[in-house]
Amino acid sequence: MTNGCVFCDGEGGVRLWRDERCRVVLADEPFPGFCRVVWNAHVAEMTDLAPADRAHLMDVVFAVEAALRARLAPAKINLASLGNLVPHLHWHVIPRHRDDSHFPQPVWGTAQRPGPARPLAPDLPDALARDLAAALGCGSAAASMP
Amino acid sequence: MTNGCVFCDGEGGVRLWRDERCRVVLADEPFPGFCRVVWNAHVAEMTDLAPADRAHLMDVVFAVEAALRARLAPAKINLASLGNLVPHLHWHVIPRHRDDSHFPQPVWGTAQRPGPARPLAPDLPDALARDLAAALGCGSAAASMP
Repeated sequence: MTNGCVFCDGEGGVRLWRDERCRVVLADEPFPGFCRVVWNAHVAEMTDLAPADRAHLMDVVFAVEAALRARLAPAKINLASLGNLVPHLHWHVIPRHRDDSHFPQPVWGTAQRPGPARPLAPDLPDALARDLAAALGCGSAAASMP
Repeated sequence: MTNGCVFCDGEGGVRLWRDERCRVVLADEPFPGFCRVVWNAHVAEMTDLAPADRAHLMDVVFAVEAALRARLAPAKINLASLGNLVPHLHWHVIPRHRDDSHFPQPVWGTAQRPGPARPLAPDLPDALARDLAAALGCGSAAASMP
């Protein structure tokens, strides 16, 4: 736990899956389905992790990508681990659509248009959680933070 | 080969390493040491690759991260696979410094200041190429495109 780190102090979004090492959350961002995969421990860089941990984290990232592709059929998936502001390992997994506010620019770039009214389907969080449990096993949700 | 795809039609930068599956290039970007890891075949998403290929590509990405950290001691490494404009798998591996033009914003965001005059060290490409050969083996440079 590092005081003042949003990913140490909280889950970071609506939890979809979690094990002892990392968790998947649905982010509160204006791109429906935008997920984050957060390493539980406060570590800055991928190469700070042991190779097996690195591989596990990427397997979770790719399971999220697969679930988002299957559920939302985006034009493209964007993956990024930046962490300049919050140097606690977290991956952005972002389903992009041709009519979203920024396409084809990155979501951190300049808006290209007003985004369409594309609400988050109410059943998407549960559906993604089921997909992740099927792909990754049940994790250890009971052991997670409250 | 896909006509009109910059990563099918060309190497994408100064080659630092290459094998049968992917290559590492030094990009022509105003962030010295900005590398890209490009999958050789025209594939759009990580989950379009077989798991073993996915793992290989990430191993190369992490070898680049390790080399950049050792050589440049950046404040942060940024990793991203976006591909909205060029849907041919390529990873950006970007060493970020606190005084670079965009820090702490992503390089695709709004510039925060004029970037410092931080020239690319003339010996960096050779040094990175040696680091990657040491970490990944010699690849297959001879088999690459001219």
